[in-house]
Amino acid sequence: MADKTLDDLFYETLKDIYYAERKILKTLPKMARGAQNPKLKAAFEKHKDETEGHIERLQQVFEIIGKRPRAKTCPAIDGIVEEGEEIMDDFKGMPALDAGLLAAAQAVEHYEISRYGTLSAWAKQLGLPEAAALLEQTLQEESKTDEALSKLAETAVNTAAQKKAA
Amino acid sequence: MADKTLDDLFYETLKDIYYAERKILKTLPKMARGAQNPKLKAAFEKHKDETEGHIERLQQVFEIIGKRPRAKTCPAIDGIVEEGEEIMDDFKGMPALDAGLLAAAQAVEHYEISRYGTLSAWAKQLGLPEAAALLEQTLQEESKTDEALSKLAETAVNTAAQKKAA
Repeated sequence: MADKTLDDLFYETLKDIYYAERKILKTLPKMARGAQNPKLKAAFEKHKDETEGHIERLQQVFEIIGKRPRAKTCPAIDGIVEEGEEIMDDFKGMPALDAGLLAAAQAVEHYEISRYGTLSAWAKQLGLPEAAALLEQTLQEESKTDEALSKLAETAVNTAAQKKAA
Repeated sequence: MADKTLDDLFYETLKDIYYAERKILKTLPKMARGAQNPKLKAAFEKHKDETEGHIERLQQVFEIIGKRPRAKTCPAIDGIVEEGEEIMDDFKGMPALDAGLLAAAQAVEHYEISRYGTLSAWAKQLGLPEAAALLEQTLQEESKTDEALSKLAETAVNTAAQKKAA
């Protein structure tokens, strides 16, 4: 058996985040429909468009390393999304639903931030500057989305979550 | 059925991270045993000690809101840990094992960062400044651990991962 080095790990992790991004793309419209606050709804819709761009960038990275884009089941994102769905069920129609959805979205963002941070560092190490730049670009967008969600939480969503419905 | 507000969401999410921290406490010794680089091994051992402190702080937060500490299965951390275990199996004895373990640990850190960020914001909103301070303290430690792991990746682990074994 050949030694598995960073090239193999990079490829495996690329398949993992490719699966995750496609799962997120399917989940975001559900979250947008569930959200009550129009700003939160808009944030989820905007992030859906961005996610399409992230998937295209990943396809470019696969091309750079001479592989066809492939997805590999990622139990981490499955678990994170499952928790978001639990919130949607348990808090349906409740004042705290938006705060719960927003928190679930931030858990998704942080998973992506960790994966893109890792992948861009590995791409640099592997002498793949173009791939590193693509991954870094997505990393920046994920970080910005996370910050925007934090602001939205502080300014609108958490206050609404505290109020009892009339 | 009573309206579910931020208090309920705070309590549910506290049970989620309590489960996650206890799972992490059990997983870190396995990761430490798996790590080849002594600095990475030491980082996992240090983080195990910190995790014990995080669990104690969570118990204090439960006390502040007048509830007994309870854990609720957290599919997100189960999935993240499962991925780490896959890496340990697939890359056992391989040059890239440490880089994979380190990446798995950073995925764990980011999950915790997102949860503690959310919980401390909610604690402030709910008028629980003592709880917010405890959660914020852990958040700072998780962020520091994540930064330390990034540095370790760049300085030692990723380079070693690239080398074919002799």
